[in-house]
Amino acid sequence: MSLKEEIAAFLIKEFPQTKVTVEAVGNKLARVKHKISTAELRPGGTVSGPVMMAVADVALYVAILGEIGLEALTVTTSLSINFLRKPSATSDIIGECRLMKLGKKLVVGEVTIYSEDMKDPVAHAVGTYSIPPRQSS
Amino acid sequence: MSLKEEIAAFLIKEFPQTKVTVEAVGNKLARVKHKISTAELRPGGTVSGPVMMAVADVALYVAILGEIGLEALTVTTSLSINFLRKPSATSDIIGECRLMKLGKKLVVGEVTIYSEDMKDPVAHAVGTYSIPPRQSS
Amino acid sequence: MSLKEEIAAFLIKEFPQTKVTVEAVGNKLARVKHKISTAELRPGGTVSGPVMMAVADVALYVAILGEIGLEALTVTTSLSINFLRKPSATSDIIGECRLMKLGKKLVVGEVTIYSEDMKDPVAHAVGTYSIPPRQSS
Amino acid sequence: MSLKEEIAAFLIKEFPQTKVTVEAVGNKLARVKHKISTAELRPGGTVSGPVMMAVADVALYVAILGEIGLEALTVTTSLSINFLRKPSATSDIIGECRLMKLGKKLVVGEVTIYSEDMKDPVAHAVGTYSIPPRQSS
Repeated sequence: MSLKEEIAAFLIKEFPQTKVTVEAVGNKLARVKHKISTAELRPGGTVSGPVMMAVADVALYVAILGEIGLEALTVTTSLSINFLRKPSATSDIIGECRLMKLGKKLVVGEVTIYSEDMKDPVAHAVGTYSIPPRQSS
Repeated sequence: MSLKEEIAAFLIKEFPQTKVTVEAVGNKLARVKHKISTAELRPGGTVSGPVMMAVADVALYVAILGEIGLEALTVTTSLSINFLRKPSATSDIIGECRLMKLGKKLVVGEVTIYSEDMKDPVAHAVGTYSIPPRQSS
Repeated sequence: MSLKEEIAAFLIKEFPQTKVTVEAVGNKLARVKHKISTAELRPGGTVSGPVMMAVADVALYVAILGEIGLEALTVTTSLSINFLRKPSATSDIIGECRLMKLGKKLVVGEVTIYSEDMKDPVAHAVGTYSIPPRQSS
Repeated sequence: MSLKEEIAAFLIKEFPQTKVTVEAVGNKLARVKHKISTAELRPGGTVSGPVMMAVADVALYVAILGEIGLEALTVTTSLSINFLRKPSATSDIIGECRLMKLGKKLVVGEVTIYSEDMKDPVAHAVGTYSIPPRQSS
């Protein structure tokens, strides 16, 4: 199994309800996709904020798993998101994460969030995760 | 209908999928509750981060509706959350919002998030909403 | 020396340039004051944003020192601030910190920032500090 | 005068005490530099957090001036910063801003902060500014 397949399988086991799938992972990067259907929409035809927050959270989690290995004890300590544009109601949501710091205790990354058919991002998030102590190898 | 009932009805119409209910609203405050069932849990038995983000977002929205009236055009512009403690897996999540600024264009509020049976908060969020221009009355 | 005097002396030694003084500390709370003179003003007669960020940072630091003792290795890991109202140009700035979480590795607190002669806060910040491992005693 | 020179002159007039200079501006980008001397250091030989917050704030301001023209009424509404690595005590601090949204009322940008001689960033900030209504031209 590739790293991507391993993490995708782990994600499904960890979060059986998630609608987020892993598109790419590695090199401190991750790309995830959230299928959008009526359940994710607000009246007025836009994706709800909490859906984009969930995408940001999972994108960070996947990028971290790609660096430290499958580790369920990793937990979000903070997340900060700015909503930039109204997402399309008919496109899936993409989250692209880039880790900025991979420390011994804390990981910090940013996630740019897109509607799949729009050029400009719809939201931008920065999050921190606390990771368990690792052994040097 | 009381203000609380009006907003509760509006919320159900606006977000038919939401599991959040309005407990109290008024005086720049709001209290909301999110029923917790297996769907909101992560393995290890804790409520997932995005559930708490959704509670923060709705608590803010309800507090704002309590001040400016039923207004669907109100949109979140940013949300920042810190996770403080592991929530209980068997208690509902409560969000208590206090608006700190009700400006002409922007509203800022904080939300303290509790597991219903725990004394100390499990998370704390600060969010901003953009509101449509209002007429003075 | 009282706890407050000890921390005030430590602060002056650690940050000889600071204009912030300790007003009160203890019970996971701290109150600090920043003297305002022309150097802190922007044209238009308002206190500059970075001055309020510095007040938030020091208020958190003082509240943490009040709990863990004089510890220079404590470092800010994140700070998030919302500006709520235009501060007065002729009043000192007050920062009131309340620690929300005092964990083994991370401390999270909020700081409400006032112009000394105004009732409503001028800004609100949330910050996290990383603290060095402590021995149980 | 070039745009960069105009903004540099405006900055000195607006913030006569600032130690930040404009290195580049245009295309929704800005690069600023903060001279580091003993006044900006904490014991242990590192640049203090509030200095980096000030750099983030000015970098955003300069990038916005580059888009909307010289406009003193532009004010910070929020700033969120994550500290990633210990800055060098002997290098100047560089802030590189990229605007992510230039709306009618709100501007959102991110700022990556470097010690001039280090490859990896020492901090990362996201800020929002409120801008006055503009005429279409």
